[in-house]
Amino acid sequence: MNRRLFLSAGAALPLSAQAPTARIAVIGTGNRGRSLLTTLARMPGVDIRALCDTDPSALDRAATVAVNHKPELYSRGENDYQRLLSRDDLDAVVIASPWKWHATMAIDAMKAGKIAASEVPIAQTLEECWQLIDTHERTRVPCMMLENWSFRRDNLAVLNMIRKGLLGDMVHCHCAHSHDCIDHWFFDPKGNDRWPAEFLIKRNCDQYPTHALGPVLSWMDINRGDSFATITSNATSQRGINAYFARQFGPDHPNAKKIFAQGDIVTSLIKTQQGRTVVVNYDMQLPRPYDNRWMVQGTLGLYDEDKSAVYLTGKSPKYHEWEPFAPYQAAHDHKWWTTMTADPNAGHGGTDLLELSKFIEAVRLKTPMPLDLYDGVTMSSVIALSGRSIAMGGVPVPFPDFTRGQWKSRKPYFGV
Amino acid sequence: MNRRLFLSAGAALPLSAQAPTARIAVIGTGNRGRSLLTTLARMPGVDIRALCDTDPSALDRAATVAVNHKPELYSRGENDYQRLLSRDDLDAVVIASPWKWHATMAIDAMKAGKIAASEVPIAQTLEECWQLIDTHERTRVPCMMLENWSFRRDNLAVLNMIRKGLLGDMVHCHCAHSHDCIDHWFFDPKGNDRWPAEFLIKRNCDQYPTHALGPVLSWMDINRGDSFATITSNATSQRGINAYFARQFGPDHPNAKKIFAQGDIVTSLIKTQQGRTVVVNYDMQLPRPYDNRWMVQGTLGLYDEDKSAVYLTGKSPKYHEWEPFAPYQAAHDHKWWTTMTADPNAGHGGTDLLELSKFIEAVRLKTPMPLDLYDGVTMSSVIALSGRSIAMGGVPVPFPDFTRGQWKSRKPYFGV
Repeated sequence: MNRRLFLSAGAALPLSAQAPTARIAVIGTGNRGRSLLTTLARMPGVDIRALCDTDPSALDRAATVAVNHKPELYSRGENDYQRLLSRDDLDAVVIASPWKWHATMAIDAMKAGKIAASEVPIAQTLEECWQLIDTHERTRVPCMMLENWSFRRDNLAVLNMIRKGLLGDMVHCHCAHSHDCIDHWFFDPKGNDRWPAEFLIKRNCDQYPTHALGPVLSWMDINRGDSFATITSNATSQRGINAYFARQFGPDHPNAKKIFAQGDIVTSLIKTQQGRTVVVNYDMQLPRPYDNRWMVQGTLGLYDEDKSAVYLTGKSPKYHEWEPFAPYQAAHDHKWWTTMTADPNAGHGGTDLLELSKFIEAVRLKTPMPLDLYDGVTMSSVIALSGRSIAMGGVPVPFPDFTRGQWKSRKPYFGV
Repeated sequence: MNRRLFLSAGAALPLSAQAPTARIAVIGTGNRGRSLLTTLARMPGVDIRALCDTDPSALDRAATVAVNHKPELYSRGENDYQRLLSRDDLDAVVIASPWKWHATMAIDAMKAGKIAASEVPIAQTLEECWQLIDTHERTRVPCMMLENWSFRRDNLAVLNMIRKGLLGDMVHCHCAHSHDCIDHWFFDPKGNDRWPAEFLIKRNCDQYPTHALGPVLSWMDINRGDSFATITSNATSQRGINAYFARQFGPDHPNAKKIFAQGDIVTSLIKTQQGRTVVVNYDMQLPRPYDNRWMVQGTLGLYDEDKSAVYLTGKSPKYHEWEPFAPYQAAHDHKWWTTMTADPNAGHGGTDLLELSKFIEAVRLKTPMPLDLYDGVTMSSVIALSGRSIAMGGVPVPFPDFTRGQWKSRKPYFGV
């Protein structure tokens, strides 16, 4: 999170000037929506036509970010995004509303003929996953989930190394979203519930699996040669939330004793059709530094993000000794990163800029989305599937095959 | 493995000179047995009376290590250890034979009234686990599994930190035995099967869980306030062994095509009675550096061995930033380590010396074993239980309660 690389939006898009401008709207202009909007508003070939939020003050703040674009503002309640979608001058919408709206808005966007890009996760339930897929297949409108960690510079260099065969056949991955979000995301700094708190109260699952899984999908060619088959999930009991409130606000704070359904740590074990495994950790309510704990292991060696190190048999100079990852990152830097230059406003170290650039490029050139909807719903389905497994005492639960068998013949596309 | 701290056997045992000498035999004098014997033979208060091995040349080499003790040698076939056990001048036997003999020999030792210390794992099957427990409870003879990683200096400092409350309530642990043993343990450097190879051919499980689990048992007070409840295990397919042989000896080597039952990576998810979880990774047939990937996480913070770092809320100076573990290790160094001094021959950085010293101390003083048989069989039972879970498609399998309910009232003992 601290590796802020400065990239320029100007050079990010080596598109012909003849490519049509992307006419965009942003639905949901809270902190995340405004951050995405800031990046989009500075991007060449982008015209921000409309913004939508239920909170007029959030909308006004967002409008100042895109002031040169003179976007029309939509703020007449929860369903005003429908009025926005009925415009006939939009190519695409970017959705950054609260979780429970993502799928509905993306589905409605596709129905209205607008390309949809949704923040993570794109769906909360399996029904939403299937509705997204069905709508997409019927309308043939593209839809992308904005999983930015797929675009990280380190993860893309690892992807290059895998594609060059340096790690051999893929065998196993570990990934996590270890991010203490108790004091700013689930609750505000004063200890009041924010909207995500309801999810801690009412369910027990991996609430937020996509940042962990994003790069794993591309590393393992999931939905493109391999496919998630089953998932088994276990949750610890909840100790962290109560302990946080007791520590921070005293033992009499209501949340120091409240029963939250959500366990502190959820560990999911995914098995793929090709006999590979993935461990996914949800870890968002205990005090700790941010971490993703990626490890990807093949028949020739492995990458360990925790150590920022690799070991490659036949290549690493010392038998069974780690090498620093940095020289490998430099040697296998992804073309998407080497063709960008500095922009001090790019979010998440330039990763958001790259992600949005590739989305906008696909909108302007009418090419496939870099991450498609099958990827989006596969990652998001872990929320519902992990919850089912936990509720049934940790039995393996099958993944739906959202590609309807196409994973066997689809070829790798992301970052190729 | 490279952190060789030099400790002196001489100062390791602050026992009164009046404590009786421990009269010891070693059964199994291959590489591991000879290493243990080397440490034992230099230890004050130890008298090596007998050695046993089916291989006379291994036995002769071992005898030279203990030449001052003039041990009697037993080499009349597989069951000659029984003749050794019938001696009336032995207090204890140390067992370092191949895996399949550990339980049988430990049981026979207890029956013969000899305290038993067995190398890891002490049992291969649940039946062996129960036979060990039943024999121990009937004979009341002590029995210890020699899980040396419980005694590591870093792990004992972490144990001190946990006992002082620095990590808060325990929530979750990760641990692994990531050790590429293909070219020297399962097979010899020329690619010939060694005795452990049969286990790769005939079964699919976590073959070697005790080095991962050793410190976890003490960190989490397993069998002493908490107890392993269920285990769910998944294995990848086997790619690593075939790939190794094809790479090293050519695609026509028989082991390049042979079907091995054992998957490359086994991930087990253990849930405890108190709602904590433990992830255990078996990872012994893919090329990689040695690693245990310990992580222990509580309501106040965590220790990450991969990063050699800690984060402790309210203590770590920067919000959500790791601190190096080294100063904590120094500040919370365990008394067992601070009372030892240098011995250049101590195995595994002095850890084996400490482990054997505590065993010998318990023999001489007739005090409880530092790790008792319940700990030994609990760790070892993961072999059989993980195999069952894998065979049944990854369903959760209950742990037997080897303590028969005593885990609820037993108090922490190890390292107290």
